[in-house]
Amino acid sequence: MRVKDVKKVVLAYSGGLDTSVILKWLQTTYQCEVVTFTADLGQGEELGPAREKALLLGIKPENIFIDDLRETFVKDFVFPMFRANTVYEGQYLLGTSIARPLIAQRQIEIAEQVGADAVSHGATGKGNDQVRFEIGYYSLKPDVKIIAPWREWDLTSRTRLIEFAEQNQIPIAKDKRGEAPFSVDANMLHSSSEGKILEEPWDAPDEIVWQRTISPMDAPDVATEITIDFKNGDAVGINGEALSPATLLTRLNELGKANGIGRLDLVENRFVGMKSRGCYETPGGTILLQAHRAIESITLDREAAHLKDSVMPRYAEVIYNGFWFSPERRMLQALIDASQASVEGTVRLKLYKGNVIVTGRKSPHSLYSMKHVTFDEDQGAYDQFDAQGFIKLNALRLRLGAMAGRKGGTL
Amino acid sequence: MRVKDVKKVVLAYSGGLDTSVILKWLQTTYQCEVVTFTADLGQGEELGPAREKALLLGIKPENIFIDDLRETFVKDFVFPMFRANTVYEGQYLLGTSIARPLIAQRQIEIAEQVGADAVSHGATGKGNDQVRFEIGYYSLKPDVKIIAPWREWDLTSRTRLIEFAEQNQIPIAKDKRGEAPFSVDANMLHSSSEGKILEEPWDAPDEIVWQRTISPMDAPDVATEITIDFKNGDAVGINGEALSPATLLTRLNELGKANGIGRLDLVENRFVGMKSRGCYETPGGTILLQAHRAIESITLDREAAHLKDSVMPRYAEVIYNGFWFSPERRMLQALIDASQASVEGTVRLKLYKGNVIVTGRKSPHSLYSMKHVTFDEDQGAYDQFDAQGFIKLNALRLRLGAMAGRKGGTL
Amino acid sequence: MRVKDVKKVVLAYSGGLDTSVILKWLQTTYQCEVVTFTADLGQGEELGPAREKALLLGIKPENIFIDDLRETFVKDFVFPMFRANTVYEGQYLLGTSIARPLIAQRQIEIAEQVGADAVSHGATGKGNDQVRFEIGYYSLKPDVKIIAPWREWDLTSRTRLIEFAEQNQIPIAKDKRGEAPFSVDANMLHSSSEGKILEEPWDAPDEIVWQRTISPMDAPDVATEITIDFKNGDAVGINGEALSPATLLTRLNELGKANGIGRLDLVENRFVGMKSRGCYETPGGTILLQAHRAIESITLDREAAHLKDSVMPRYAEVIYNGFWFSPERRMLQALIDASQASVEGTVRLKLYKGNVIVTGRKSPHSLYSMKHVTFDEDQGAYDQFDAQGFIKLNALRLRLGAMAGRKGGTL
Amino acid sequence: MRVKDVKKVVLAYSGGLDTSVILKWLQTTYQCEVVTFTADLGQGEELGPAREKALLLGIKPENIFIDDLRETFVKDFVFPMFRANTVYEGQYLLGTSIARPLIAQRQIEIAEQVGADAVSHGATGKGNDQVRFEIGYYSLKPDVKIIAPWREWDLTSRTRLIEFAEQNQIPIAKDKRGEAPFSVDANMLHSSSEGKILEEPWDAPDEIVWQRTISPMDAPDVATEITIDFKNGDAVGINGEALSPATLLTRLNELGKANGIGRLDLVENRFVGMKSRGCYETPGGTILLQAHRAIESITLDREAAHLKDSVMPRYAEVIYNGFWFSPERRMLQALIDASQASVEGTVRLKLYKGNVIVTGRKSPHSLYSMKHVTFDEDQGAYDQFDAQGFIKLNALRLRLGAMAGRKGGTL
Repeated sequence: MRVKDVKKVVLAYSGGLDTSVILKWLQTTYQCEVVTFTADLGQGEELGPAREKALLLGIKPENIFIDDLRETFVKDFVFPMFRANTVYEGQYLLGTSIARPLIAQRQIEIAEQVGADAVSHGATGKGNDQVRFEIGYYSLKPDVKIIAPWREWDLTSRTRLIEFAEQNQIPIAKDKRGEAPFSVDANMLHSSSEGKILEEPWDAPDEIVWQRTISPMDAPDVATEITIDFKNGDAVGINGEALSPATLLTRLNELGKANGIGRLDLVENRFVGMKSRGCYETPGGTILLQAHRAIESITLDREAAHLKDSVMPRYAEVIYNGFWFSPERRMLQALIDASQASVEGTVRLKLYKGNVIVTGRKSPHSLYSMKHVTFDEDQGAYDQFDAQGFIKLNALRLRLGAMAGRKGGTL
Repeated sequence: MRVKDVKKVVLAYSGGLDTSVILKWLQTTYQCEVVTFTADLGQGEELGPAREKALLLGIKPENIFIDDLRETFVKDFVFPMFRANTVYEGQYLLGTSIARPLIAQRQIEIAEQVGADAVSHGATGKGNDQVRFEIGYYSLKPDVKIIAPWREWDLTSRTRLIEFAEQNQIPIAKDKRGEAPFSVDANMLHSSSEGKILEEPWDAPDEIVWQRTISPMDAPDVATEITIDFKNGDAVGINGEALSPATLLTRLNELGKANGIGRLDLVENRFVGMKSRGCYETPGGTILLQAHRAIESITLDREAAHLKDSVMPRYAEVIYNGFWFSPERRMLQALIDASQASVEGTVRLKLYKGNVIVTGRKSPHSLYSMKHVTFDEDQGAYDQFDAQGFIKLNALRLRLGAMAGRKGGTL
Repeated sequence: MRVKDVKKVVLAYSGGLDTSVILKWLQTTYQCEVVTFTADLGQGEELGPAREKALLLGIKPENIFIDDLRETFVKDFVFPMFRANTVYEGQYLLGTSIARPLIAQRQIEIAEQVGADAVSHGATGKGNDQVRFEIGYYSLKPDVKIIAPWREWDLTSRTRLIEFAEQNQIPIAKDKRGEAPFSVDANMLHSSSEGKILEEPWDAPDEIVWQRTISPMDAPDVATEITIDFKNGDAVGINGEALSPATLLTRLNELGKANGIGRLDLVENRFVGMKSRGCYETPGGTILLQAHRAIESITLDREAAHLKDSVMPRYAEVIYNGFWFSPERRMLQALIDASQASVEGTVRLKLYKGNVIVTGRKSPHSLYSMKHVTFDEDQGAYDQFDAQGFIKLNALRLRLGAMAGRKGGTL
Repeated sequence: MRVKDVKKVVLAYSGGLDTSVILKWLQTTYQCEVVTFTADLGQGEELGPAREKALLLGIKPENIFIDDLRETFVKDFVFPMFRANTVYEGQYLLGTSIARPLIAQRQIEIAEQVGADAVSHGATGKGNDQVRFEIGYYSLKPDVKIIAPWREWDLTSRTRLIEFAEQNQIPIAKDKRGEAPFSVDANMLHSSSEGKILEEPWDAPDEIVWQRTISPMDAPDVATEITIDFKNGDAVGINGEALSPATLLTRLNELGKANGIGRLDLVENRFVGMKSRGCYETPGGTILLQAHRAIESITLDREAAHLKDSVMPRYAEVIYNGFWFSPERRMLQALIDASQASVEGTVRLKLYKGNVIVTGRKSPHSLYSMKHVTFDEDQGAYDQFDAQGFIKLNALRLRLGAMAGRKGGTL
């Protein structure tokens, strides 16, 4: 690895041991000025210590950036994604994937502001996050230099890392000396755990893995009933109370946590080519997905809904692979957003021991027509006889095929 | 409605009041010979009474067909559909849709056998089932005459129907005199309820609606752990015991029922153009879907899996709309089936109060490589440095775009 | 066919014999007031006679609407469609399909204006146009009554039609007495011919069929070179001269015609279920399609282009089937339009005896980077070594598959 | 670049200067045994000299492999691809892309046979071909070592390359001393030219670029009429004469060449992320594509055809990017091949100065029903009245939308 010529680098800094080592390693290796950026995405840790630690490691106060991005995160990243009912590989709610582009975006903004020529992050060379960060960086600042320490350095074992920390007077919390039993990423949308004790996909995850939700087994024996209000495809209130995006998601997280909702134990396919096993907790997001589908069920036209469904896997892949800041994501978003103007109304749900049960949906823009669907006399709203012509012409090509010897749709 | 010239008609006959009225009405209106066909698809009703009733209504013994199609149903219809992880509109497991083509197929076989020129069914003119039956008929026998009494006759109210029954000495069970509070369809895969008291989508369904599963609330407080074995993409055993398709699905239904699994309350879009609300119970199918996804997660290549995901919504639509016997279904099936040869192995699951929780998966054909994914030293299985080139070339088009003024993937 | 209760009907009226007969038949059969609407879509016929004939048939002057819709047609229908490089079934440029929604839209506007409760058109019951008209009507005015005389009346042979005309004093041009050898539809985008002498798909079309282009055989022996300028994805000028949409398309039609460009002899699949054979002439559109693809080739991002390509067949089907005024068309249009902001620049073409040959393209927003692609020394613009990591990670899943016994991507 | 430990390498060897230099460089740099493999894919060069040159450069006779792969190439690669009417980015017939996997496959077979641990090719680090070769290698032999000299060595200018050749007694043809004005790749399906004088996309290609076709301007003034016979979706004869795949394509190439057919000047998007400009000549393939579409137009069901169209862009991308030996290509192929059983019959075409004009198609399995489509009396084959119900139910969702305030399909 040839060392790049770097003057000033903006580091995505959590304040933890690993990124503190990276901070020091950047100073040492590149002899460059380091700017730290710490984002509050609702990961549930205080950010004060990050500032102190940065100062302690010699970062100038004007080079320390700590931002509360929670509302932006939910409003401009999480909500647009949920408009598409997005799941990766049928199940994963993309909690990590959707946070990376926001961090990259802010890092590049800071780089432009402080005149930095480089950025750096703490993601390893095996995972998806390096791709998501770096695709974001390049797309927003094509001439940026990128330093990915885990792909470059020789601190490849825990022992060496601790050694480097000790040699460089980096404080080490007691519980960080040993190997963590698994690796965690968290933000307001989800927590993910992977690696180490989770690497064998036949072994059930230990209960210790789940940190964001109680077990369905421990959840209350009575259901919690709530309503969620939507407007323009986004959730805007709970139980009739209007809430900001981040406040709303926080509330849903609490409700989900208390009712054992949103756990997922999954083997997924990484963009870099291997399979990995992750345990995800997305309490509020799991509720939100069901509720959004329910409000769409009465407000979206059939073909609009099916068209969304047909592009969703591609949209999920685009986000998972790290291409949020890409033409294809913007084009797909245009299609999705164009469908949401009338996705408005209220959904009633029961939350119970891991279950999210839709029990009602209503909307001022409902397309559900009881007059048409009713089993009772419909006063001519629908002429049943029309179905004959509908069926006969839908069947015509198949009849012609069968007459030509291709019965049953054989080819 | 001009009355067709019909000599002999094969009627899909359940033995219930409605199809008994149809039977009589066909005899009266078309002055034709009626052949009855009653299928056991695992709907949970005895078929003996259907024979007796047909005899009572004057059907000759040789014109009464009663077939046990349960194994065929699961093996040739349900399982192929589950290979695709098929859900309609994100949620519905297509329990009714998948049964119709089999009934149509057998009806046409009987028509060919007895020399009938017509077929008839008891589906109404508002629903999807008429389409599914008739598309099937036409595709298999393009010159067949189709009689859809509900679109033709004037027995459009319950009162008139009962009157007609009484005038024609059709026995009426006591509980069938009044209006049913909702309409039910059932087979081995699912039960569906719709209409009447379920027509208001804001009202939660009464507990009486659910007949196939106990409530999650009433399910046991301890989880039931099972394993399911797969081969060629199909489930072949439970807890290590090899089972035939229908036996296996029956077993899963019992497990699902006992654990409150597989309820769905949905507003969906019908092919005929309106929205309708249905309450579905698919206990075994719900478990099967999760298990199939889990075994695929370690045995399917990423792009194979994503390709399946991308065509699934279309495949679901094809089945929902009634085009099982069509070239497009056969082509999609060829794609799907081509992917399943190595989908083999075992999935461990916990069933608990409505939850299906995957806790392990293993396979002799696993593509999961612990050697590559591990957080530990991987002995060079994976060269982290490769990621740099991978990212740089994936980002190149975005960098070129950004250099041309289109930062962040703007267009 | 039960006759509807109609007070005032707006008829799409060409002034020809068939729609004149319809006009009279509507008056006679429905005893209703008839409003005629004649559109100039560049079909190349004078509209004056249509007014005179309508007056002659007793239509009040205030009930005669004649509109020049040529600029609207090209700007709001043709151009949006060409942004997607739309072709139906790989070849057909949708010249008829794209005109129908505009006619339907204007007809409904007139109906609202004059307080008509019904609309009527002259399309037959076998074709696509009835669907396109009526879907448009229903989508824009859901309670409108639709009269489709060809599906209702008994004037089903030429003889009867002529008889009716004679009985009702409808003037009959000499050359209209006999059967036309084929049926023609025309507008500014194309002419189509079908039916009668064209019904045998093994027979080559007679030269008489082609009315809009000279034969490539008769075209000049020297090529004509032109340039076309684009902005926001639409053509805006020829040879450096800015032109309005309709003027530009007229000019391209002249150029195409003179060079034998744009003939197509096709068997296509109708929405109503049968195959039909059509001979189409789209001289200007054929040039425009090639030019648009060429300007996109240097200005569109790869994934943007591929995403457009992947939804195009669906978009073409939506338009062909008559769903211009639908949510799915609007959503797809949003995706397509979102891609066109930088589709700007100039394309140079040679037109020669049926050939459209692109010979150059340039753009102020070009994404083509000679610096990167050059075979010469590129001063480090592109690091060839990056390709190794790119390939290795793209191949990783296949290598893991091969190691698990699935060589060559077998499944 | 760290030099790998290689014992025996199979080199894709053309016999030209570049791969001769590679041969020598491999011997020198890796001190390994070199096995040469030269394939006849119909590129139009004699292979005898390749053998002589290899001997001259010290390759042992048993290490020289020269194979005529022409029939395999057309039968197992070109024809399967044409079944899908495959074009990349709307235009490119993939002539280079489709040849690479066959070369890779044979190279790996030889490697297994001779016990080689490595393979090598002469593609540069900027292009798609390196990806196609190497993806193929890895997919077929996951532990193979790959040597890509152009990404590794320092012979990065023509001068250095010539120097190396001279120092190593590699014979240099007189016309190879200077820089070629552009780079050429050829096989039986096509010739491609790119680079150097073609790098400016605004400049028209010099006539010297076109080597495989005469100019439309120079082609005969009279059309050539031919017929092509198809069976199972593949061309099997010309003018009634049965021909083997390679013979047939050769014949079509001659016909195309003589009539100026198959030139394409294109800017395309490479998988490695940049745009490039290529001039392609695919004379026979261009004819074949039109003919295949024409035979499908009367033999394929509508939805089968549309489904093929909808997956084609993905299939083209898979091949272009080099993933022939992948699960996704095999799955797509299964879908495509499933559609071709009845694609049988004869197409008549006129070839004239760059034009391929379909003038007739017929088939024993035709789905074209003159009885249904005719403008004449159809004796009840088609009941026009059916169209009313068809349209009304297709419009129902849009009417319900309009009634809910969303006129014209607004959302």
